[in-house]
Amino acid sequence: MASRTATELVHPDREQLRFTAVLAALSDPVRLAIVARLAEVEPDGELACTTFALPVSKSTQSGHFKALREAGVIRQRDEGTRRLNRLRRDDLDTRFPGLLDLVVPQGRAVIAGW
Amino acid sequence: MASRTATELVHPDREQLRFTAVLAALSDPVRLAIVARLAEVEPDGELACTTFALPVSKSTQSGHFKALREAGVIRQRDEGTRRLNRLRRDDLDTRFPGLLDLVVPQGRAVIAGW
Repeated sequence: MASRTATELVHPDREQLRFTAVLAALSDPVRLAIVARLAEVEPDGELACTTFALPVSKSTQSGHFKALREAGVIRQRDEGTRRLNRLRRDDLDTRFPGLLDLVVPQGRAVIAGW
Repeated sequence: MASRTATELVHPDREQLRFTAVLAALSDPVRLAIVARLAEVEPDGELACTTFALPVSKSTQSGHFKALREAGVIRQRDEGTRRLNRLRRDDLDTRFPGLLDLVVPQGRAVIAGW
């Protein structure tokens, strides 16, 4: 099995972001919660996948991060054995102004309900 | 086969609307286009399903309307042989302020691209 490398992590460019794909990525409570957590550490904060106390299995969690990355909501990079996540605030605010401001409180509400 | 009756049409109450379900319903270009068309005839306008010139089959179209209705984005009612659709602007603006304002221009862009 290949070791993790940064080159595995595909990210759409800002111009490639599609509104419908972003909405689909955000249409899940766990993914909303991830976005809300990442919004807490903006602008430069990154959080390792392992620091999210999510009520799902590790593999399910990985799938959620991947869905967010592939839609362009988060940026991921590997550092040693950790996979770090950052919210793509600038890209999302540029392409879809107001969307994150609307989404983050919904993610906070999800976390508050856990 | 039973004739169409209004009682078949299930609509969630305003309090039952879920953000993730609404986002999922909106995460499709055809459904965004439907929302944008309905936004043109607000507040009291209703459009029959048959008046939407959508680039999909009739059955696919019906599925899209149903998805929007079940998520609480539109209200449907039958009048004779026509099924009429109306945007649930008040409910959506109350529960998720700003969402429709963000979504409608995206739907217009979809239509412009057809």
